Amino acid sequence: MTVSDTAVSPVVPSSGRLRPLGLGEVSFRSGFWGDRQRVNRSATLDHVEHWLTSSGWLGNFSPGADAGSRRGREFSDTEIYKYLEALAWEYGRTGEPAIDARFRAIAHQVATAQEPDGYLNTNFGRPGQRPRYTDLEWGHELYSYGHLIQAAVARARTVGRDEFVEVAIRAADHVCEVFGPGGIESVCGHPEIEPALVELYRVTGDTRYLEQARLFVERRGHQVLSDIEFGRSYFQDDVPVRSAPVLRGHAVRAMYLSSGAVDVAVETGDQELLDAVARQWRTTVARRVYLTGGIGARHQDEAFGDDFVLPPDRAYSETCASVGSVMLAWRLLLASGDVRCADLIERTLFNVIATSPSDDGKRFFYTNTLHQRSLGVEPPDDEIVPRATSNLRAPWFTVSCCPTNLSRTFASLAAYLATTDATGVQIHQYAAARIDTGDIALDIETDYPVSGRIAVHIRRTLSTPWTLTLRVPAWAAGASYAIDAAQTETNAQTEAAARPATTARLEPAAPGWLRIRRQFRAGETVRLDLPVEPRLTYPDPRIDAVRGCVAVERGPVVYCLESVDLPPGTEVDAVRLDPSVPLAGEPGTVTATGRILPARYDGWPYGTQAFDPAGEKTDLTLRPYHDWASRGPSTMRVWLPLDTGDSMTGQQG
Amino acid sequence: MTVSDTAVSPVVPSSGRLRPLGLGEVSFRSGFWGDRQRVNRSATLDHVEHWLTSSGWLGNFSPGADAGSRRGREFSDTEIYKYLEALAWEYGRTGEPAIDARFRAIAHQVATAQEPDGYLNTNFGRPGQRPRYTDLEWGHELYSYGHLIQAAVARARTVGRDEFVEVAIRAADHVCEVFGPGGIESVCGHPEIEPALVELYRVTGDTRYLEQARLFVERRGHQVLSDIEFGRSYFQDDVPVRSAPVLRGHAVRAMYLSSGAVDVAVETGDQELLDAVARQWRTTVARRVYLTGGIGARHQDEAFGDDFVLPPDRAYSETCASVGSVMLAWRLLLASGDVRCADLIERTLFNVIATSPSDDGKRFFYTNTLHQRSLGVEPPDDEIVPRATSNLRAPWFTVSCCPTNLSRTFASLAAYLATTDATGVQIHQYAAARIDTGDIALDIETDYPVSGRIAVHIRRTLSTPWTLTLRVPAWAAGASYAIDAAQTETNAQTEAAARPATTARLEPAAPGWLRIRRQFRAGETVRLDLPVEPRLTYPDPRIDAVRGCVAVERGPVVYCLESVDLPPGTEVDAVRLDPSVPLAGEPGTVTATGRILPARYDGWPYGTQAFDPAGEKTDLTLRPYHDWASRGPSTMRVWLPLDTGDSMTGQQG
Repeated sequence: MTVSDTAVSPVVPSSGRLRPLGLGEVSFRSGFWGDRQRVNRSATLDHVEHWLTSSGWLGNFSPGADAGSRRGREFSDTEIYKYLEALAWEYGRTGEPAIDARFRAIAHQVATAQEPDGYLNTNFGRPGQRPRYTDLEWGHELYSYGHLIQAAVARARTVGRDEFVEVAIRAADHVCEVFGPGGIESVCGHPEIEPALVELYRVTGDTRYLEQARLFVERRGHQVLSDIEFGRSYFQDDVPVRSAPVLRGHAVRAMYLSSGAVDVAVETGDQELLDAVARQWRTTVARRVYLTGGIGARHQDEAFGDDFVLPPDRAYSETCASVGSVMLAWRLLLASGDVRCADLIERTLFNVIATSPSDDGKRFFYTNTLHQRSLGVEPPDDEIVPRATSNLRAPWFTVSCCPTNLSRTFASLAAYLATTDATGVQIHQYAAARIDTGDIALDIETDYPVSGRIAVHIRRTLSTPWTLTLRVPAWAAGASYAIDAAQTETNAQTEAAARPATTARLEPAAPGWLRIRRQFRAGETVRLDLPVEPRLTYPDPRIDAVRGCVAVERGPVVYCLESVDLPPGTEVDAVRLDPSVPLAGEPGTVTATGRILPARYDGWPYGTQAFDPAGEKTDLTLRPYHDWASRGPSTMRVWLPLDTGDSMTGQQG
Repeated sequence: MTVSDTAVSPVVPSSGRLRPLGLGEVSFRSGFWGDRQRVNRSATLDHVEHWLTSSGWLGNFSPGADAGSRRGREFSDTEIYKYLEALAWEYGRTGEPAIDARFRAIAHQVATAQEPDGYLNTNFGRPGQRPRYTDLEWGHELYSYGHLIQAAVARARTVGRDEFVEVAIRAADHVCEVFGPGGIESVCGHPEIEPALVELYRVTGDTRYLEQARLFVERRGHQVLSDIEFGRSYFQDDVPVRSAPVLRGHAVRAMYLSSGAVDVAVETGDQELLDAVARQWRTTVARRVYLTGGIGARHQDEAFGDDFVLPPDRAYSETCASVGSVMLAWRLLLASGDVRCADLIERTLFNVIATSPSDDGKRFFYTNTLHQRSLGVEPPDDEIVPRATSNLRAPWFTVSCCPTNLSRTFASLAAYLATTDATGVQIHQYAAARIDTGDIALDIETDYPVSGRIAVHIRRTLSTPWTLTLRVPAWAAGASYAIDAAQTETNAQTEAAARPATTARLEPAAPGWLRIRRQFRAGETVRLDLPVEPRLTYPDPRIDAVRGCVAVERGPVVYCLESVDLPPGTEVDAVRLDPSVPLAGEPGTVTATGRILPARYDGWPYGTQAFDPAGEKTDLTLRPYHDWASRGPSTMRVWLPLDTGDSMTGQQG
């Protein structure tokens, strides 16, 4: 096992349509995502380590820890592992010795807690604790191994095989022994071991891990787990992966399982399995995804609702589910090249992943509602809050999966920007970034999503024709591009970068893949212009919860109305938007026109007459959803009722 | 303590605006409610006893039962108590010796499980079980006493003080000792002991029970219980009862607590407390109640949602919460005479209490959704299903509070029909029934709610003027009444009942209380005519979840559209209702006009254009909601989108 630039990436399939670039090949410069990655490094990593320590969750790995001293929920080990994964990517990205030292210290503490046979979990098997594997439904033991292995995969890809990687390998070997053929023929209530084992196979070449992942994927859905109040669909044990029509149940579980299924399908050449997951994903995207890209419409079981059940005010839209959604869509994109996967990744990144953390990187949304009806209460800096009861960003949660999940995602985020294949380079996401892979080096300049202008500078190129593929998002009708060709005829190549050719012709670029095949020359620039005028977005009428409403989007960014932008005492729920008045856009805000309805009486809220209440005409200022609640408690709506005549109780009846 | 006709009623306040009639004073004849009460007697009681036995929950009271042999959830004792309460009322109503024998056998078994100091709970304090009162948040010990005492109150009012009543009194004495001044200064996570102790005070005259109930009511809301993931509002420990603005948290808990608070307020003359609960109730009715009268918009914590959060497709609307809602509204009605209380009771009875049980009385809805999106699967006759996962009526649940709660309600339901006060008799609910109280005897003849014609025959009357008060429901605009006076002038009094006077004059009767004060004569008839033409009902526009929709009601009955009444392959979600075409009504069905939208593509469900899809004009047949799913699995909607132009994705974007 050696470390190479091309394998320093969260997902490295051995086949597929597209090859991911490694973190040595693509990196952010300052901009929307580069800035967030820097906050992750400078603030969130410290914040996470502080809480892992003060909560006692890290201490569970100490010698002598037992049932009485153990702290945290049954899956708290995984927060340490996800933090280690974040450190591994961050070290791989920056090479900072201090980050490596942190990794080594915690990894060593974890290693000391491993049993001689490879078992590693602080919640089972010790004196006073339940025996191992006696609660597969809720024990999360295999789920914990999954995150342990993912962290080790990140370490192996960035540093090579060290003590921590060996810990994960011993754990994986133990899993194969206990859950392999002839062993416990069951699965874990929370998927995650599946993609982890395939990734470990990719790192080590040991097919035993791939086979074990395959077994886990195939076993699930045959009612191998006990039934629970939420039903077996909660952990996807209701229907086999290859025959399910749609993603369902607990959203994070569904994403991790599907990611593992894609990994297994790709590595085993199982096209039927790959097609099944791709089909489920397409149906899910058409029927069970919020405008923000968020998933999970139910608080009760953190689960998908039925088709088109997407209530904005009870949106669960867990941050971790969107991390998982990016994982899944990325895998499908690599396997199939389906542009819709990159579209969903963009939507999810800008409207959930960017929404969860505060600007300072020390507070997080666990759930990401699209409609906040009451003013939240800011949780104190030093308090752990329940996961779904906070309606403002909180520093830490009793179930604190989201901060560490974000941290590992931000540290490795550049890996999701671009890919290569035999034709050339594909750019999926737009950000100020550098790409340097083999014979091709590109500089991407943009202040996206503030503007839609993207410049791809060719710094180094193959000497033969190749294809630069740019994604034109589905929302970007009317996009155009131009090529500022290098002036090779005049031997003025060194000036070309600074001086665009005056002959560049604007060409239309339809949503989908824009493929530019030519003999590129160093110094040339491809300019893509995506129209980011604000636009109104209407819902499919099958989504009952937002009937008669409209949302505002601008480029990839969903906008929202907050009460702090309304006259004092006015509620967002009293606002109606007039769709006949054009939206006005400027960076950061969109202005719409609407009415504010007067306050209403309280009485029986159902009546025999509908009428159109009067109300003051007013300008409405909307701002990016990902910034909401950053100016203090506020009520908020993404979907605004249309000002087209309202149903209102005229009299009691 | 003696038994009298006037005290045989579930709630007997010592003061208040209205005095309830006892079960010896008012009884059903055959009709909507009389038939359901008969099914409860002939089928549900046997069904409940079968399940209490086969589930092992009754066996928990057997000598030698311990932690290992105990079956059921922590509150399963209460199902036995609610069954005993049902038997007590049923025996009080009918005097059937077989019912009394059943009661005695089970009551004796319960008595043997009581500890010498009065403690009685099969889930705590025995070998291998946790010590008493170590989990007030979730242990349900005081909640269990509450139902034990309620059953004993029913027994005392129908039979007198027997062995079982003594068991409850010993338990109540124990509670006063342990939780009285200087004892454990806390409350139970599930209210119920509060109304029970006040009722026991009403039965025994022992003020200690009233004082203990008062203490429990006053303590709650001061964070005396630990915080939980749902927040302290779940068990109403967030804000003191007398300062809360609205009912909130777990709906059943809120109803039982508020009922107890009204009882305490009435018995202690605490007008401030009474006003607080009445205010909370009015705000709740205006903002947090479904069209059906159902309450509880959240599955997660079986709780109220925020104001106007009333999603039809995730309505929890637990049957027991509606039992509690009737308990609360009845208490407020007795205390205040507010006609809106009787209106809500009617709505709740016809649209939740009547909806839950199947026609044969052996299956039940635990939750009562207003929108069923997918075909349910009929649970087998012999299977216990989780409480909220069944979307068809089920025979029994892991938490099986609803069947026994319905059973005790049906057995005592006639007590909610009418009251007396110094002015005369008030009739709150309409059903074929007999009333016989003191010098006044009335026969009520009606096939309500099939028709709105109600005849109140005066069988016996005071010889001085008195007031017959009839409730004209809020929905009944255009009601009228007439008095068929006895022909005393011609001495033809004996013929009067058979021969209505031809001189009866039709008078308008506005919604609210219709008070008819006169010198009634035996043989006279008061005829009330409530217009039950089907009508369209529009929601307050603050209810986001049903924006742009309309419902159909007829009299007190909410109607719904079921897929079994649509052409094969048509989904209820594809239907649009045209409000411009008058509804046509006939008993049992209402015909509306609408369109059925064509099937749609699957793609990204948000787009830049709204358009009005074409669709076939069609007749729509709606039927009473309380009958839904009685013809097999069906999809169903109460709220139908208006056919007034639809928002639809014209293109992806």
